Amino acid sequence: MIHTRIKELLNSTDFGKTVIVKGWIKTFRNNQFLAINDGSCLGNIQVVIDYENTDERTLKRLTTGAAVSVEGVLIESLGKGQRVEVKASQISILGDSDPEKFPLQPKKHSLEFLREIAHLRFRTNTFNAVFKVRNALSFAVHRFFNERGFVYIHTPIITGSDAEGAGEMFKVTTLDLDNPPRNDDGSINFKEDFFGKSTNLTVSGQLEGELAALAFGNIYTFGPTFRAENSNTTRHLAEFWMIEPEMAFYELKDNMDLAEELLKHVIRYALDTCSEELDFLKNRLQEEEKSKPQTERSELDLLAKLNFCLDNDFERLTYTEAIDILRRSKPNQKKQFKYLIEEWGADLQSEHERYLVEKHFKKPVILTDYPADIKAFYMRMNEPDEQGRKTVRAMDILFPGIGEIVGGSQREERYDLLVNRMKEMHIPIEDMNWFLDTRRFGSVPHSGFGLGFERLVLFVTGMTNIRDVIPFPRTPNNAEF
Amino acid sequence: MIHTRIKELLNSTDFGKTVIVKGWIKTFRNNQFLAINDGSCLGNIQVVIDYENTDERTLKRLTTGAAVSVEGVLIESLGKGQRVEVKASQISILGDSDPEKFPLQPKKHSLEFLREIAHLRFRTNTFNAVFKVRNALSFAVHRFFNERGFVYIHTPIITGSDAEGAGEMFKVTTLDLDNPPRNDDGSINFKEDFFGKSTNLTVSGQLEGELAALAFGNIYTFGPTFRAENSNTTRHLAEFWMIEPEMAFYELKDNMDLAEELLKHVIRYALDTCSEELDFLKNRLQEEEKSKPQTERSELDLLAKLNFCLDNDFERLTYTEAIDILRRSKPNQKKQFKYLIEEWGADLQSEHERYLVEKHFKKPVILTDYPADIKAFYMRMNEPDEQGRKTVRAMDILFPGIGEIVGGSQREERYDLLVNRMKEMHIPIEDMNWFLDTRRFGSVPHSGFGLGFERLVLFVTGMTNIRDVIPFPRTPNNAEF
Repeated sequence: MIHTRIKELLNSTDFGKTVIVKGWIKTFRNNQFLAINDGSCLGNIQVVIDYENTDERTLKRLTTGAAVSVEGVLIESLGKGQRVEVKASQISILGDSDPEKFPLQPKKHSLEFLREIAHLRFRTNTFNAVFKVRNALSFAVHRFFNERGFVYIHTPIITGSDAEGAGEMFKVTTLDLDNPPRNDDGSINFKEDFFGKSTNLTVSGQLEGELAALAFGNIYTFGPTFRAENSNTTRHLAEFWMIEPEMAFYELKDNMDLAEELLKHVIRYALDTCSEELDFLKNRLQEEEKSKPQTERSELDLLAKLNFCLDNDFERLTYTEAIDILRRSKPNQKKQFKYLIEEWGADLQSEHERYLVEKHFKKPVILTDYPADIKAFYMRMNEPDEQGRKTVRAMDILFPGIGEIVGGSQREERYDLLVNRMKEMHIPIEDMNWFLDTRRFGSVPHSGFGLGFERLVLFVTGMTNIRDVIPFPRTPNNAEF
Repeated sequence: MIHTRIKELLNSTDFGKTVIVKGWIKTFRNNQFLAINDGSCLGNIQVVIDYENTDERTLKRLTTGAAVSVEGVLIESLGKGQRVEVKASQISILGDSDPEKFPLQPKKHSLEFLREIAHLRFRTNTFNAVFKVRNALSFAVHRFFNERGFVYIHTPIITGSDAEGAGEMFKVTTLDLDNPPRNDDGSINFKEDFFGKSTNLTVSGQLEGELAALAFGNIYTFGPTFRAENSNTTRHLAEFWMIEPEMAFYELKDNMDLAEELLKHVIRYALDTCSEELDFLKNRLQEEEKSKPQTERSELDLLAKLNFCLDNDFERLTYTEAIDILRRSKPNQKKQFKYLIEEWGADLQSEHERYLVEKHFKKPVILTDYPADIKAFYMRMNEPDEQGRKTVRAMDILFPGIGEIVGGSQREERYDLLVNRMKEMHIPIEDMNWFLDTRRFGSVPHSGFGLGFERLVLFVTGMTNIRDVIPFPRTPNNAEF
């Protein structure tokens, strides 16, 4: 007989039917009530043991974390808290769990402790909920683009290009680090490396994505990207997943529209398909915030925050308008910002982004048209404004509690302007001929953006540390499991 | 006015409607007929130019590869080969393409040549079709697992573990290769490396996938994996994508059933959603095979081959049965195999797999229960047979023309047996405590497999070189773009 998953059993009304349940014991109360979970949902099924007729040695092995197979009859539950339960006729231990050694006990563990045992934290309610939501968001991303005819492109992870410019890179090599082959001048002979040259882990699939967009029209990537930056924060990972759509014939407004539509689509999908998980995470967050002073607690609960995002247009304004608001803002006037906003051209810090999103507009914000000097070479140059200030057609989407969740731009499609910008920014043009070919042969206006997937999961789950929304986080000094 | 994608226009019957088309010029005939493609489908739309009233300078710029925006009226076409066309009222050049320099001319290019310009090959019919099919297969994989309640898990790309044992690994480092920090004994001081230890690119997400399966029940991965092996063949890549489902409570038969169901599901999805592309690829393959001697041509055309796969059960047999067949086979008797099958225990070579699949059974084959000595440490040990021979609960799925497309097994869930096997195979047990914890705490029977995504795309598209089914292949001495 095939076992039935607990998610299905909990929704079943086949009372009287004999079923097999397989899963892990969460608790065993009064030598009679087993709570069993198989990971298919947050809920446990209650199994009622016939204490008198169960072998004593088996009873002793019914410990938290042990795996069991139970055959029994599905019945309506008289106890409160559950609708159905299984009256066991036969129970067998699939795998023991020594209660002295099993680190997950039926009590609350700190997230820090659970990070140390990331291989077991999947078995907790919190991480069950988080990774179910992560799964739903992933699927929603693919569904969104698939419905719109976008082509999913797997851009390379190992790259010979070091001109992506988005951050520090990890080197990839098969050379003997202890004694690498060298050229006559003493430099390392990368001709003997696996790829015949020095290679790195990608920081972005954008440039390759542009190549595909200028053939297929609309494409997206969804893959891992890397930053070798020593950022030990709650918002940074050395290895993270990014979604990068790139669209031919899209101008900046189309780009903003698509990004806003995507974010709303995937949040709505999570609300629709993960209500049990999001309810749990809402309550978790409320519990967590009880220890905080009133002023630091969220104004909206998790579900209200997500729905608020769906129901409101994101606020769109230019960098220049944002600087005006920030310059006149209370924290700037009262010198409460760590970095005071004094003049146009300043790079925005997290404190400024948070002020705009959380205090001033109280909703997601799309900032556009940043100063050219603080943005990447591939962004399309605007006409200088009346004061001669140069801006580019960039857009960043800022989310409450998260900061930048999306960064994008209309791309510079004009060959001469692009080459000039690359020269100014010391990008090695000769290595980038493949990229420039898109501007030599049938160049078209196009746009794209990058959505940091873990930041999205952070926002939707209400978790506060990015290490808690990816299975096995990679951060400075940590590549465990 | 917003432009309409050509895929939509070609299916439209809104004759008389004014539309905007944007795309790239494929051909320009008789100073009158432009064939324009925007990547949304294989088909081009014909645009009829009013030669008399079009500026001469514009006419000169209507070259293959140039990007244009055309406004005009959608009309029923009188010409053969198309149902609709656009009578242009206005045409503007978005991006020129110098016909002396643009490498893609309206003629057949060799796949080898196109590999050199992988950044432009997306614009050819062949690669449009290949990457559309690849996209459809990706989506089908996610849909398949999503419908069945599997959780998509992003396992780490950078790993501190070197015990995965599936092949040679790439090192990942931020150390200065020219002058790495060293310990007193002269060895490299990996404590100063980014992760505080030596790290590699993953060869498989399986071990981490098992951790998740023993919490969620059913999970899958779909991500890049790496092999630093100097294999310059048409079937190997240094960077490739793999799908790795892992299921708690699954035994080997369940595992085989799932793999067969998955393969059939995604092939069916491609047939259902990519009929235009697969038709094109079928014809391409037939053209290609014309230059081959009759005996080397496929017996079935591409579509027939895919349908044959759907309509037939995969042949299931044990390694031991396969060895008997091979030993008695004609090529073995006549010594035509390069590696003759003499005794039980021999590893199967590609020639043997092909014989079984293409000559003997003439359909996909699932081989199970391989000798323990030639398989990985984590596979579940069978009881020795009557001759005392040790086998493991492995399964490989072999496809015609491809060879191994899936490799999997029931996993060894018994702690003592697993540890013994690891010791025998010199796997560093102390580094693998996180993995062994799954066998210490609530271990259960479980199974999983890995599906090489590019081999699947190869099979479904009928392409013959794996470099032609991934956008930017990484192979020895090649990490271009």
